[in-house]
Amino acid sequence: MERGGDVPKASKREDLLASALEVFHTRGFHGTGIQEIADAAGAPKGSFYNHFASKEEAAVEALRRYGAGRRFDILGDTSLPPLDRIRRHFEFLRDENVERGFTRGCLVGNFATGVADHSEAIRAAVLEGLRTWSEAIAAALAEARRDGSVRPGLDPDETARFLLNAWEGTLIEARAGRSQAAFDTFFTMAFDVVLR
Amino acid sequence: MERGGDVPKASKREDLLASALEVFHTRGFHGTGIQEIADAAGAPKGSFYNHFASKEEAAVEALRRYGAGRRFDILGDTSLPPLDRIRRHFEFLRDENVERGFTRGCLVGNFATGVADHSEAIRAAVLEGLRTWSEAIAAALAEARRDGSVRPGLDPDETARFLLNAWEGTLIEARAGRSQAAFDTFFTMAFDVVLR
Repeated sequence: MERGGDVPKASKREDLLASALEVFHTRGFHGTGIQEIADAAGAPKGSFYNHFASKEEAAVEALRRYGAGRRFDILGDTSLPPLDRIRRHFEFLRDENVERGFTRGCLVGNFATGVADHSEAIRAAVLEGLRTWSEAIAAALAEARRDGSVRPGLDPDETARFLLNAWEGTLIEARAGRSQAAFDTFFTMAFDVVLR
Repeated sequence: MERGGDVPKASKREDLLASALEVFHTRGFHGTGIQEIADAAGAPKGSFYNHFASKEEAAVEALRRYGAGRRFDILGDTSLPPLDRIRRHFEFLRDENVERGFTRGCLVGNFATGVADHSEAIRAAVLEGLRTWSEAIAAALAEARRDGSVRPGLDPDETARFLLNAWEGTLIEARAGRSQAAFDTFFTMAFDVVLR
């Protein structure tokens, strides 16, 4: 990708960040080099360091960008019943994964398993990502509890974190099996067993 | 670790495999070098290639060794009621993780997220590991269904895979949060909601 000299710096940073997200998601933190991120953005390697202090800093920013693409807006769309929103949210994530041939998994889970033990900054960003996500699910579950569409007594926060964790593991099974079976099981167990 | 020349080769292979498991679990597949595995076994680097064709082959063998240490025997101990066995199995895994300060996670999940997309041999070994594990849980759940200690209609295979996936995600949350909270939620949700 060639660019003229008149492109503002903010745009170059966005290009680098989009490339970083793509390469981190495809190859993992340890499999990613700064040269590859720069190449994918059509930028010289030195340009990376004009925008990020380190690969770790780019990973934290890439994770935030990834989170912003998780369609949490579906969970807050009050024109739909809360359980429909939760289902559509996970269907969106499933469809995305199926399109990618069951590869890549979730960047939050990948960074948790691959690098959180060795980077406090990335561990904190993973934790923040999980919290933002589970809180959005918990808010919809709290509505479902009020309108009586889930079984009585379910704790929205615990249930949301459990479902989110089950989802992360579901991606692991789907990735290992290159198969939809894990998703089918998730939807049956989550909506017909956990929530009913 | 120094060794005399009279140590049989099988023992050296076991040393290398134990070291490989330790280093892969601590540093991940991509963070592990053959030199480190050899160093941890007190062996020269060349010795590694007397026993393993590649790092990938050592990883597959390390994963099998890891699986053999997961205490599936608890799940088959018919002197205990089946749900007690499932609980004790996960308590064993939880206690192991707490002792390690919530680091390392599960090698099956780590390899799934870190390297399964890029190695067919490791992807197959991860899938085999998940299957062996979920089948052992499913066998205990089938007993529990027969003796009426779980809610009627639960499918043992689906339920086992869902609980296993939830466990893998629970390790992700525990690792990111360096906290027991994810485990507490897993036990409450699994035993008081999913199975009842």
